[in-house]
Formats: sequence, structure tokens, C-alpha cells
Amino acid sequence: MTIERVRRETREAVAGNGLLDRRAFLKSGAALAAAVSGYTLTESATAEPLANDPWSQVAGGIAPAYEQRSRFEAATMRTQNNPKGEPRPQNLRTPHHLLNGTITPNSLHFVVAMGGVPDIDPDRHRLVIHGLVKRPLAFTLDTLARYPMVSRVTFLECGGNSAPLFSNAPIQANVQALHGLVSCSEWTGVRLSTLLEETGIDPKAKWLIAEGADGPSVSRSVPMTKAMDDAMIALYQNGERLMPSNGYPMRLLLPGWEGNMNVKWLRRLQLTDAPAMTFYEARTYAPILPNGKAYQFFFLQEVKSFITHPSPGLAMKGTGFYEISGLAYSATGRIAKVMVSADGGTSWAQAALQEPVLPKALTRFRLPWNWNGGPAVLQSRAWDEAGNVQPTRAQIIAERGQTKTVPAVTAFPTQHYNGITSWAIDSKGEVRHVYA
Amino acid sequence: MTIERVRRETREAVAGNGLLDRRAFLKSGAALAAAVSGYTLTESATAEPLANDPWSQVAGGIAPAYEQRSRFEAATMRTQNNPKGEPRPQNLRTPHHLLNGTITPNSLHFVVAMGGVPDIDPDRHRLVIHGLVKRPLAFTLDTLARYPMVSRVTFLECGGNSAPLFSNAPIQANVQALHGLVSCSEWTGVRLSTLLEETGIDPKAKWLIAEGADGPSVSRSVPMTKAMDDAMIALYQNGERLMPSNGYPMRLLLPGWEGNMNVKWLRRLQLTDAPAMTFYEARTYAPILPNGKAYQFFFLQEVKSFITHPSPGLAMKGTGFYEISGLAYSATGRIAKVMVSADGGTSWAQAALQEPVLPKALTRFRLPWNWNGGPAVLQSRAWDEAGNVQPTRAQIIAERGQTKTVPAVTAFPTQHYNGITSWAIDSKGEVRHVYA
Repeated sequence: MTIERVRRETREAVAGNGLLDRRAFLKSGAALAAAVSGYTLTESATAEPLANDPWSQVAGGIAPAYEQRSRFEAATMRTQNNPKGEPRPQNLRTPHHLLNGTITPNSLHFVVAMGGVPDIDPDRHRLVIHGLVKRPLAFTLDTLARYPMVSRVTFLECGGNSAPLFSNAPIQANVQALHGLVSCSEWTGVRLSTLLEETGIDPKAKWLIAEGADGPSVSRSVPMTKAMDDAMIALYQNGERLMPSNGYPMRLLLPGWEGNMNVKWLRRLQLTDAPAMTFYEARTYAPILPNGKAYQFFFLQEVKSFITHPSPGLAMKGTGFYEISGLAYSATGRIAKVMVSADGGTSWAQAALQEPVLPKALTRFRLPWNWNGGPAVLQSRAWDEAGNVQPTRAQIIAERGQTKTVPAVTAFPTQHYNGITSWAIDSKGEVRHVYA
Repeated sequence: MTIERVRRETREAVAGNGLLDRRAFLKSGAALAAAVSGYTLTESATAEPLANDPWSQVAGGIAPAYEQRSRFEAATMRTQNNPKGEPRPQNLRTPHHLLNGTITPNSLHFVVAMGGVPDIDPDRHRLVIHGLVKRPLAFTLDTLARYPMVSRVTFLECGGNSAPLFSNAPIQANVQALHGLVSCSEWTGVRLSTLLEETGIDPKAKWLIAEGADGPSVSRSVPMTKAMDDAMIALYQNGERLMPSNGYPMRLLLPGWEGNMNVKWLRRLQLTDAPAMTFYEARTYAPILPNGKAYQFFFLQEVKSFITHPSPGLAMKGTGFYEISGLAYSATGRIAKVMVSADGGTSWAQAALQEPVLPKALTRFRLPWNWNGGPAVLQSRAWDEAGNVQPTRAQIIAERGQTKTVPAVTAFPTQHYNGITSWAIDSKGEVRHVYA
């Protein structure tokens, strides 16, 4: 087979450095055929007879009752910062450069675990709701199974996701290392408001303290307004029971809010008239700002986007057509628009958003690109339906600071970077992280 | 702890035998509190101090790079009809009674494999498109990665799903055995129409023959109209690469169409002017009807629904509130309405549909129910946006026949049952399959 380049991309660019119209690929069939003049990517085929590969000439294997991935996919893994389980937090990051779509497989959902993963017997586990309630109640899994349930697709993101971009020089790492502490699932469970209707609520209750059954009893304070809005006691993740490291057998789900507040291995909710200022909310999740003050609470994971394809480690293979693709999301609703640049922000083209665009869910954006083989700097920038816009890096570090050291992992600030990410592509097709 | 029954369900029923208004549970917060008077399901709690379970008193375990389920979930498995991989088809069924939401985890997606699961090296695999094209082309995975992609959530269903209900007596089995050959994923890949634009299409082409790389080279004929509509070369399943038994590294996806036509381990598409009448389409998937004729092709998986909770094996635990929940779907678009009966079809109440309701996707329906402890017969019936209605069992067997033997697995008819399913509940709370 030989590379055949019989046709050329003739569409007009809609922004600098080869960005094409997003709408070409929302059409289908004849409309698409008319709109696109070919990609020049393919090999000509020797059609008949096709050679039979060895696996086509033998009986296949046994499909197991609970299936595992192909042995050829072993490299699609979360990274582990603490693979021996030493007495410090475990962080595992989702490999977004090796995935596509918007759902994160349960085995690859990101994890932050302050005290490891407890091995909980679901038949012995209870959720207790007490404090400023009319009747303190304990709920078993069997009891929860009888209540009305809801499902929703929503992202979860650690407040510390993207923190390497606070570094004063661009850290050379891939999208998994930079942005791998965000994932998206279809969660199913019981609305917290349904259970609070069972306990009754003392009018003095303004907060609840959510506590996990893990060793360090990770606890966070949650305003009652969120509890009564869209909070869920999540029992299922993408159809099946939660993964152990994501809170099996139940977790608090606060769509759009800082990951750590979505308390895993949830064992109690205590209604109170004030926040508890627990260890993690007073220390880890209240970083000090350049002006010497700190956010006491920082609930929302603000509007953000990043490009997953191309990205560092996914080298370009020859000039011509590519799809630029990435993820956008916001705690304040649906993504309204994503703009993409191939010239470091000089000019922008609007990306297509994969339907359905759901509130507080990962949204896949896509834009066709004709790479001419020259240098390029790719960026994405997202807007949400509430009118919020993803800041530039300069804007966000002016507000929240930047570190003086590389790597930035343990230096301040470490929380809530949602600025623009830039990938530089050189003439060899290598992709690296830059500030632009 | 003691069972506390301080409040009673006082809502008015909207249909016979305790069915309640679906809208109570679509509200939130104060509106819900006002609408619902309590479920009387819970245990009172001894709040302080909470006893610490053993897993709360030790350091937790290590979260692995690719995570596995809790050891307590080992019973959530597909059933295997052929666990030793004898030289006959392997069927594996999804345990819908143990899942919730609408996404099926990849490890639990149903499988029908005619010749076992091939162990394909993705770097050596090619997709060839040839026949009535202008340029026969071969596509590698690397090449396909550069094309525009799309994602969509869609169900896949074997034409033989629900076939046990063709039996002339109700087979005593659970929802997994009766309806486990349907599943739902977010699939991501390249539109087939995009690739056919690359090859060019000879105007004489009316069909394409899709062939898998498995041992028996499973092949099916597909009309070009479907190929140019919403057909996809699927590369990702719920974010990650396809599972081996679901076509790794690529399959044909024909949303809503008979499962077997969604050819797995896809290695070629030959454009032709007529269907091929391949082995499987001429034999297995063209069953003979009571009038002596056969469907030459039966493309669509017609509108269907079934109740997953309660269902056989999930015994009721005391009277009072339960949520009736199940799945509905149709090849001809979105589900428009699901009605539920608790008295064997005498009266009906409209169920709530979990948003977003997507075309050709599993749709979760839910309805609150106050079980009085007496006999009940639960049924569900679905309508789609194209105006199609799920038939009664009497209607479907009048058209397609029923078997004279039990079990019905190898007798005729075996394909395309979409009639109503009935679960009878006795005064002990046991659930069994009946015809009603």
C-alpha cells in the first residue's frame, strides 16, 4: 500500500493557521459530501483477496462474565502519585489524551484519597442524618433502594486540578498530568432533599457537615441551599455500584462543586447552624491569595476547557487534516460556546459542541484543522450559559498568584486554576506545553 | 435501632393498586417537602457517638492504576450460556436488575459472539472499503484518529432478546435471562458517510456487505441509506477503546438496528448493488412466521419496555413505598411516554422519564408506588415519538407466533419480541414472571 494524495483540502479557513468551519461535520450524507473535498489521509487498498490475519483463522476466546480490556490497551492507565500507599494522599489522574467522548470509564475516573481506600462491607454500612433535624435517621442500602431515584451526567473535579499551570514556567507534562483530576459519569442515587424530608429540618439548620467512613474521616461543610438543590446520595456510577476509590457504597454528589466536598464513603450528615471549619476545609482547600487573604470556601469549579487531541505525547503524523478536540465544563450550567485558536490567540474559530450539551457535564468540542506543517499554538476558551468566560492565564494568575518554583505541586497557590492552556506544535509535529 | 413508622403515605393514588403521581419526585427542595408526606421506611438513629466500623479505624488500601470493583459486588455478572467456549455461539446477558441509570458498564455489556472473541492486534488491523467505490481504501487506527468524530448514546439489542416470551407458558427466569441482550453506551467514532466520501460512491451501490475479522467472518448486508444516515465506525465505548467482545478495535454501529448487523471486529465494507444473503441473515435472522413466510430483513428494534425494579429475584421487603423503575427504547426515535400498571393492565399511570431523553437510547422510567401487601401484577408499556406503541403479548404472538415447548430457546420463533412483560407479586413479596 502507498500513501495516496489525490485530492487536496480546498475549504476556506475561518481563522488563522488553517482552522476550518465547524459546521462541515455536523452535516451528514450528501450534504457532507458536497461540503468537504476530501482529507488526503488514506492508503489505497488491494481489495481482493484480502489477506486473513491470524486471529481470523482460529476459534476466538471466551467472553468472561465480567470483561476486561484488550491486552493491547494496558497503557491506558491512571497515573499514581503514591503507588505504594504511603501515609499521604493518593492522587490518580484520568488519561484524557487516550480517551474520547465525554463519559469516563469507572476504572479510569480520577481519585484523590486522603487516607487510602476503605474496604467497606455494604451490608454493615449506614448513613446517619442527625443534628438539627426533627428525627435522626439511619439509612441502609436496602432502605435507600426503595426511595425515588434520579440519574444525572455530571463532572467531578478536584479543586487542585490544573494547579501545575500556576507555575511561573510551563511544566513539561501531558494533559493527564496537567488536567487529569476531572472526570464525568452518569450518577444515580437518591436526592438528598428526599432524605431530609424524611428527617425533617430544624429551621435553624444552615449547614450540614458531611463525613466519610475512611480512616481520616474526611469532612466538609455544605450549605443547606446546595443540599436542598441538586445534591444526591450517589449509589451507582455509569450503571453499576460506585468504584471503591470513588466512595463505595455511597458518596455525596454536589454537581459542579469542588471535588473534595463530594464526600466519599459517606457515613453521616450532621445539620448545623454554622460550618465546622474542618481540617481539610481550613487547611488544604482555603489557600492564601496574593493579597494575603484566603477564600474561606471556594465551592464552584469555574468554566474551563482544554484540548485533548492533539496534546503532548500525541505527535502529529504528517501535514493535512486533523480534528482538534477537547473538553469544556462549568459549575454554572451548560457550555454555551468554545472558541479555538491555532495561532496563540491572534484569531479564533468557533468549535462544534457534541450534543447533548448537559449542565455541569463534560462537553466535547471539535474543530477541523488543516495543518500546514509549520509552527502552531493551539488554545481553547469556553463560555457558559451564565455568561462566565474562561480567563486567560494572565488574568487568573493576577488574581490568584503563581509559584516561584518548578514543579509547583507543593507550593502556593494550588487551587482553582481555570485559565487557558496552550499547546505549541513544532515543524516536526511534536506537541509541548507553553505559555502564550 | 427500631423500625419507626411515624408517618403514613397519604397521597392519592392515580391508578389502581397504589400507583402514585409521577410528578411528586420531579420537584426539589421545598416543593418536594410540601408534596410528599413521608415514606415510613427508615430506622431511627442513635446519633452520638457513632460507632466506628473497622474500616474507619485503619489506613485504607491502594487505588490501582486501572481499578476493579469492590469484592462485595462479585455477583453483578453477565450470565454465560457457553462458559467453556465450545464451538457454538456465546451469549452473555446484562444484569439489569442489579444496575441503575441508563449507561451499561463496558464490562457488563451484552455479547453475542458466533465464533468466540478474536485477539486482534490493533496495529495490524485494517478496515478496507471496496466494491462499487471510486477508490478502494484501507484505514488504519492511526488514520481514523485524524478524521472528524462524533459521539452518541445509543442502545444495542440482539434480535433474539426477549425471545423466551414467545414460549406458550411463562418461563420462570429473571429480567437478565429474559431481557439481558440489550445494553446502552456512549459510542464515539467516525461517521461512515465521512469515509464513503473519501472512497467515493459508484451510483450503482445500493448495499454494503459488512464483514468481521472473527473466525466465522460474520457478515451482514446493510442498505446504503442507513450507511449514509447515522452509521458510525465505533472506536470508543463509554470513553475507552471497545471491549474485546464488543468488537475491539472497531465495529459498525447502526443505531437502533438489529444487534447482529452492527458487525464487530469490522474488517471490510464491500459496496454492492444487491444484498449478499449471507449465512446469518439468510438463516438465523430470517425466522419463519406463522403464515409460512419470513422476514427477509428485519432491521428495526421496535419500541419496548420492561420493569427492572421490582423484578424476579428482587423480593419485596415489607409494605409501603417502592419506586417502580425500568427501561424503555425504540429504534424510531425518542421514547414519548411510558405507562405503568399495578393491576395487570386494568388501570394505568404515566411514569416519569429521566432526562435527557435521547433518540435510540435506553430511557429510564420511574413511578412511585405504595404497596399494600396484596397481590399485584406490574406491567409497563412504551410509546415512541414516531407514534409506535409497544404491543401486548397477545398482539405480538398473533403476528409472529409462539413456541409449543418450554424452554423456547431453540424453537421457532426466536426473533423480535417486543410485547409487554408482566411481573406478579404475591402476598409474601415474591416476584415472578406471568402472562397477564
